[in-house]
Amino acid sequence: MANPLTPDVLVDPVELTRALVDIESVSRDETVIAGHVEDVLRQAPHLSTERRGNTVMARTSLGREQRVVLAGHLDTVPLNDNFPSTVVDDLIYGCGASDMKSGVALALHLAATLPEPGYDITYLFYEAEEIESQYNGLQLISESDPEWLQADFAVLLEPTYGVVEAGCQGTMRVLVRTTGRRAHTARAWRGVNAIHAAGEVLRRLDDYRARTVTIDGCTYREGLSAVRITGGVAGNVVPDECAVEVNFRFAPDRTEKQGLEHLHEVFAGFDLEVTDSAPGALPGLTAAPARDFLIAVGAEPAAKLGWTDVSRFAALGIPALNYGPGDPLLAHAQDEHVEIGKIRDGAATLHRWLTAYE
Amino acid sequence: MANPLTPDVLVDPVELTRALVDIESVSRDETVIAGHVEDVLRQAPHLSTERRGNTVMARTSLGREQRVVLAGHLDTVPLNDNFPSTVVDDLIYGCGASDMKSGVALALHLAATLPEPGYDITYLFYEAEEIESQYNGLQLISESDPEWLQADFAVLLEPTYGVVEAGCQGTMRVLVRTTGRRAHTARAWRGVNAIHAAGEVLRRLDDYRARTVTIDGCTYREGLSAVRITGGVAGNVVPDECAVEVNFRFAPDRTEKQGLEHLHEVFAGFDLEVTDSAPGALPGLTAAPARDFLIAVGAEPAAKLGWTDVSRFAALGIPALNYGPGDPLLAHAQDEHVEIGKIRDGAATLHRWLTAYE
Repeated sequence: MANPLTPDVLVDPVELTRALVDIESVSRDETVIAGHVEDVLRQAPHLSTERRGNTVMARTSLGREQRVVLAGHLDTVPLNDNFPSTVVDDLIYGCGASDMKSGVALALHLAATLPEPGYDITYLFYEAEEIESQYNGLQLISESDPEWLQADFAVLLEPTYGVVEAGCQGTMRVLVRTTGRRAHTARAWRGVNAIHAAGEVLRRLDDYRARTVTIDGCTYREGLSAVRITGGVAGNVVPDECAVEVNFRFAPDRTEKQGLEHLHEVFAGFDLEVTDSAPGALPGLTAAPARDFLIAVGAEPAAKLGWTDVSRFAALGIPALNYGPGDPLLAHAQDEHVEIGKIRDGAATLHRWLTAYE
Repeated sequence: MANPLTPDVLVDPVELTRALVDIESVSRDETVIAGHVEDVLRQAPHLSTERRGNTVMARTSLGREQRVVLAGHLDTVPLNDNFPSTVVDDLIYGCGASDMKSGVALALHLAATLPEPGYDITYLFYEAEEIESQYNGLQLISESDPEWLQADFAVLLEPTYGVVEAGCQGTMRVLVRTTGRRAHTARAWRGVNAIHAAGEVLRRLDDYRARTVTIDGCTYREGLSAVRITGGVAGNVVPDECAVEVNFRFAPDRTEKQGLEHLHEVFAGFDLEVTDSAPGALPGLTAAPARDFLIAVGAEPAAKLGWTDVSRFAALGIPALNYGPGDPLLAHAQDEHVEIGKIRDGAATLHRWLTAYE
């Protein structure tokens, strides 16, 4: 199959967005799109390119003082009667239009057309972001080729609707368990009801006042939510066990360890079992390329509240932020789309930033 | 197969208990035992006998002023490596020894050996008490042949360890629901957490002080217990629904309607959905045959806390109580057994009661 990512397409990030949307690439099925992207990168004489699985990496070696990463995932969630793309007025509709082929288009457009940027640039087009993290291409590269992630600053082109979303909150899930003693409900006083005991857990959740923390001008609002509750043996038995699963979203000034210590304070007297945990990422907006990037964007950053792959860079000590033309509220939606104006704005901003020092 | 319920066996309620335990009769498999019992009853010239499915009914027609029912179920829970019977010292072990073939033995012994009791007697040996009530033989007879249940007083020979347990508590299950509004847990403040809201339901349960009610000298202790709680959408979603299933065991001075009204008071402000309900039964110990029965037993009655088939008689306006030689705490247990002394005591008590007017 001929590569639809022709030179004519690569010079126009809007056309490139459409072309990328029209290459089906549901997670675990990225071979075709990765092949086309690899071809484009290998044809650029200013880049050295490598491929691992369906992750394609390319970088300049211009001897610049600073190196930045531009990264985007090639995969999408499953199609939902939204393939191939369609255009209505200023909107490109299609699976992945927002999350995140419009972002990938910005990076691939720059890779193909900007031979002498002001920073050395590492481009990462990776597989399997939308599924279990064991398949995540960025995670796999951080293990197999960590030197490819080394940089002074990273931009993930995830959908932010043109806003800079810096850092990300951590997330932790714990089971809070209560225990009791079984009895027949006709003789309930002989037992101890573990579901009744869980009332105290829910009371503390209801009374909890979440912190709001401002770091580097970004405001993070924490949250502590019961996400599941289970208990019960049979319709005539006083239950001896109940478990409340709680999700703690914590600002990046807490480590995972500190987050867990906080939960032990909140739920003092109860057993806790951690079922899931991922650290947050500090916004890191004081690094020089980050400051320049904010100047190029010309708007205040906002806090990223969800968890994203910027945290993988943060774990390596690399400041990272999210910036992309898509609308995050449309990600994974059947009517996913992206505004053509946002793609052009994003391309202009990145170009301004990367050519300021030429 | 020869009938093991021979005249020699029928005269001895202890031997008869063993013989009945040794006829396998797990619920829905009562054809053999019902056939043998039917043979015994049809051979007694003082009884008129009928059979419906695997329920066998027989009655005297002596023109006595009062009629009493002696009733017992023929089925057992599934075998549990406790078949056939064994005897160790004063104990008969085996599936159904306590619940309730020792009770059935007392009734069948009287049916075969007492041609002229002081009351007219209706004997009911019925199927499928241990499973869903749609199969319950007593329930089926109350629909197909209600005249067979007509009496002034009924004794169910369920295990009570030789104590009179009168009436029974009602039972009702309701779902108490809370609702909220979904949101991503990273933006928890945009949602309303239905699990947190259920904390108030659990608080009321924990604060609830159950009534203790004394009727005809029997003390009933009510109970209100959460038996199940469910809620949750996904690990990163503020849940919009939670349901607490509550079991209310209520004294027989409340009707089902009054029980539900009480629950609406306790859970004012919450939606309730009734999932199950069965009325209690007043002890009814003021009826003449009941008073005579208590004299024959010579001990104070106790309240029955669990729900039993006496309630089916109560629904027909017939006072009923439980009285049997088995230990209710051993019912359905692998080491189920009955004390031979309790069988002899029970047989003597019933004989005393039924011959006092001869």
